[in-house]
Amino acid sequence: MRAVVFRDGRPEVVERPDPAPAPGEAIVRVRLAGICGTDLELAGGYMDFRGVPGHEFVGVVEEAPQPGWAGRRVVGEINVACGDCLACEAGRARHCPRRSVLGILRRDGAFAERLALPVANLHEVPEGVPDDAAVLVEPLAAAYAVLEQVPGAGRLRSAVLGDGRLGQLCAQVLRRAGSEPVVFGRHPEKLRRLDRLGFSTFLASDPPADRGFDLVVEATGSPDGVAAALDLVRPRGTVVIKSTTRGRPPVGVSKLVVNEITMIGSRCGPFPAALRHLVEEPDALAGMVSARYPLEEAALAFARCEEPDVLKVLLEP
Amino acid sequence: MRAVVFRDGRPEVVERPDPAPAPGEAIVRVRLAGICGTDLELAGGYMDFRGVPGHEFVGVVEEAPQPGWAGRRVVGEINVACGDCLACEAGRARHCPRRSVLGILRRDGAFAERLALPVANLHEVPEGVPDDAAVLVEPLAAAYAVLEQVPGAGRLRSAVLGDGRLGQLCAQVLRRAGSEPVVFGRHPEKLRRLDRLGFSTFLASDPPADRGFDLVVEATGSPDGVAAALDLVRPRGTVVIKSTTRGRPPVGVSKLVVNEITMIGSRCGPFPAALRHLVEEPDALAGMVSARYPLEEAALAFARCEEPDVLKVLLEP
Repeated sequence: MRAVVFRDGRPEVVERPDPAPAPGEAIVRVRLAGICGTDLELAGGYMDFRGVPGHEFVGVVEEAPQPGWAGRRVVGEINVACGDCLACEAGRARHCPRRSVLGILRRDGAFAERLALPVANLHEVPEGVPDDAAVLVEPLAAAYAVLEQVPGAGRLRSAVLGDGRLGQLCAQVLRRAGSEPVVFGRHPEKLRRLDRLGFSTFLASDPPADRGFDLVVEATGSPDGVAAALDLVRPRGTVVIKSTTRGRPPVGVSKLVVNEITMIGSRCGPFPAALRHLVEEPDALAGMVSARYPLEEAALAFARCEEPDVLKVLLEP
Repeated sequence: MRAVVFRDGRPEVVERPDPAPAPGEAIVRVRLAGICGTDLELAGGYMDFRGVPGHEFVGVVEEAPQPGWAGRRVVGEINVACGDCLACEAGRARHCPRRSVLGILRRDGAFAERLALPVANLHEVPEGVPDDAAVLVEPLAAAYAVLEQVPGAGRLRSAVLGDGRLGQLCAQVLRRAGSEPVVFGRHPEKLRRLDRLGFSTFLASDPPADRGFDLVVEATGSPDGVAAALDLVRPRGTVVIKSTTRGRPPVGVSKLVVNEITMIGSRCGPFPAALRHLVEEPDALAGMVSARYPLEEAALAFARCEEPDVLKVLLEP
């Protein structure tokens, strides 16, 4: 099959053997895959990953060990845990030290014609949810992690830092929970989608004097995001960090201590909540997809991601 | 009266006018004052503080606006809030933006013969609690903040980073709550007190292979402490940061995100819990005081704090 790998930091389409399913795993034919900020970091050397990238997808099951799955349209959770270590037993399978992660760690991903995932990781996509939205279930679920990690988030005065894909999804999830986040971004073109949805948006270079947010979600994808978040949150407030960036940015730890701020690292989230969101609001993600490219044009697609107006770029294997 | 101020980063004893009490404030004659890591940072320029330092004390009330207080032995909470801003109304008086802080921010402190504090900040020291222990109520209360900020801390597998004053107090507080923390330090002489109390201790240079603590309390007083704490905590675990250090140390934010760690800044804590501890265990802080100096010898006392075997150094005005 055709698949993308990185060579010298650039995506390249190569011929690879079809994935061989381990026990309990299904083979999924990929219909659409989304390029994520993490993929751009992987291209740059993050995680030292050498397989097929891609962890956002919607596809159709081709073969599965259990009857009834073949032919279903699915999305899939990306962490594959061992199932019998201490972390798994404690209910923290997403943190299993022996896990593989689709397209990120020890497991080939979705920028290919086919991928393998345990059936246990799959979620059927309800009818009525378009492929264009379903392909975003993984990052939408990641946005829902904020609600899991910050109880009562919907009642807080919140801000989102970052106008990219994940920032937009976090803003929409916070609104659905009852909060009405202010969004700070660097790209007028990207903020426009949020303006149309009725959010208060600000250019990060021109923040309002009125700060002191109870909750700040950092989704800038930039190492500077942490400092900016600490600047906006009130004493005893909460900062949720979503950006995985290489390097170790300097952090004003004294401010964290003196203001007794809680800073929570946040990664993957609950797929069922994300799917429910899309069933109830099938248009929720309208305007998120900026471009689609056939798999063969992965290099063009990756280049497109760097342009300032781009939200989500999709690959079609 | 005689009082300490910093000149060119060094403590110097000078003659100052007696403090003038504002409405609601008492005048306390200081019996003992403790030198804290924060004082060493203040000497180095932290907070740009130019008044009389010192925020750990035990003393006797000389005059008070209400009858009954004069002659009582007291300790005092260090944050003086305005009482009518949004933070105060929300119950976060310790974070009032207009607050003064004894010996740290806009208010002269305890390295002097007398200090002024609102009566509302004072707590009478119960009989039976020796001055040597009472002078440590403020840092002991700061250790109790960990229990306020991490519900169920007593049931967690915990570690304390730092064998200094605050690390030792955090270890003792966690034990009293039911946890049995492992303590990591750099000073065999300081770890010895904890060894005698039956704690498991390790030199930070020689940590055990078995990491993955549910809760790590960072009290190293060093900018490296954050990275060390992130190294010891398990995924989805909690790191409490107690050290206020100048500068912005580099922090492995990706690790925080990927492992979904919660990092909580922690400053002051509840005096009543600390006093109760000392009433029930009057010997709890035995071995903590390494040396006492008259106020006149403040420079010697500060120098003594830098020696590797020293836990707490006291000043006697």
